[in-house]
Amino acid sequence: MISIVLIGTGNIATHFFDTFLQYDMLNVLQVVGRRNESLHYFSQKTETCLLSDTLKKADVYIIAVSDDAIPEVSSKLKHVTGLVVHTSGSVSINALNTCKNYGVFYPLQTFTKGKKVDFRPIPICIEAENEDNLKTLSFLAETISDKVYQISTEQRSHLHLAAVFVNNFTNYMYTIGNEICDDHKVPFEILEPLIKETSAKILTLKPKEAQTGPARRNDVATMQRHLEQLKTKDKKQIYKLLSESIQKKYGKKL
Amino acid sequence: MISIVLIGTGNIATHFFDTFLQYDMLNVLQVVGRRNESLHYFSQKTETCLLSDTLKKADVYIIAVSDDAIPEVSSKLKHVTGLVVHTSGSVSINALNTCKNYGVFYPLQTFTKGKKVDFRPIPICIEAENEDNLKTLSFLAETISDKVYQISTEQRSHLHLAAVFVNNFTNYMYTIGNEICDDHKVPFEILEPLIKETSAKILTLKPKEAQTGPARRNDVATMQRHLEQLKTKDKKQIYKLLSESIQKKYGKKL
Repeated sequence: MISIVLIGTGNIATHFFDTFLQYDMLNVLQVVGRRNESLHYFSQKTETCLLSDTLKKADVYIIAVSDDAIPEVSSKLKHVTGLVVHTSGSVSINALNTCKNYGVFYPLQTFTKGKKVDFRPIPICIEAENEDNLKTLSFLAETISDKVYQISTEQRSHLHLAAVFVNNFTNYMYTIGNEICDDHKVPFEILEPLIKETSAKILTLKPKEAQTGPARRNDVATMQRHLEQLKTKDKKQIYKLLSESIQKKYGKKL
Repeated sequence: MISIVLIGTGNIATHFFDTFLQYDMLNVLQVVGRRNESLHYFSQKTETCLLSDTLKKADVYIIAVSDDAIPEVSSKLKHVTGLVVHTSGSVSINALNTCKNYGVFYPLQTFTKGKKVDFRPIPICIEAENEDNLKTLSFLAETISDKVYQISTEQRSHLHLAAVFVNNFTNYMYTIGNEICDDHKVPFEILEPLIKETSAKILTLKPKEAQTGPARRNDVATMQRHLEQLKTKDKKQIYKLLSESIQKKYGKKL
């Protein structure tokens, strides 16, 4: 049995909380927030307190707050003996090195407020400074997820950067596609099956091999027409830069 | 019952052929290719011939060849009385205006050689010059798909451009993410659930509202660190341009 104090009341903290409650092996002793109002949801199911109050003694303290707030929270956890972890993709494990026992517990997924999450297929990247702490994190992670990876701070920083491309920038490509449709009164829903299949394809094919399109086949006439169709400078620049980069990758001379 | 002559032996022609065979209402009289070798698969199930041979009389002639080859093929179909359609996203309906009856039959999906396709959820965009031809295309499209849209040549050109963003450029974002992982010995599979969820999210949320990440929240320190981490000039430029464009869209001063 692992006892947990959860610090944070946002999106990720809420998803963790709902998930931990499902497992008898995990016991959320306390949820810690900045304001009483944000603790309401949690207080119906466990004890809550403010960050300035005295925290309970627990096996693991999970800091699920914004990156910027991690230093402030960790400074309040200097004297606890339990294992203190943060849940950030981009913050070093050393941000917690004023604590006695520390580590990282990073779930790699995009979370939507209010949408229920099944953690079983979600990768959890764990990191710790010694074997005992690693064992504790492994146990905690494997209790809720089928995909647990031991990932160093350096690897995690690259993973986080890769996630910006495959999640944030990909979503921006969807936004541009949506705007083009709206501008010309074409229902964006026509593109939904294509979007779904594009993401499904890479489960069986490496993305480099799955690449298609005018840039991939060096179809200069189509690219020129597309550039003329695009209305804003931003969209033109993005189309041009990405097309040229694809052309170079596949060995076409510009 | 609609009788069909299918011209082309590539990816899309093969997927159409396999699908048409499943419906009693559709009768593929003939498949037409450029070389005998490419006709082998089709000749086991229907009649085949070369483009230089005499084509059968059919209700619909479907040109499923590369965009560049459409003029050559259509010039051979000048004298047929059936409805001649091409299957391209980016070629005007007028490319076929030397034919007596002509139109467009464009399935909007990315097809993988050898991977079976269910056309029912795939949007088919149809266009024709008169009501009778439109009715024929509606019937044909609705026989194989649940999502049939009447789309003009102009709308289709914008749809095709939007598809470049949501499919080709998105796949390139996956490629870059994959390279970053490979460079740092992180398994790319860790990102697969994130990729899947990113594409699933837009079914319930407009992409503009689903945008997250350092650029969206104007997190300058993280963006700076990411730029330093990126090794190639191409990746740096892409990261910078997309981040700046996102920052501008969400009203942050640069």
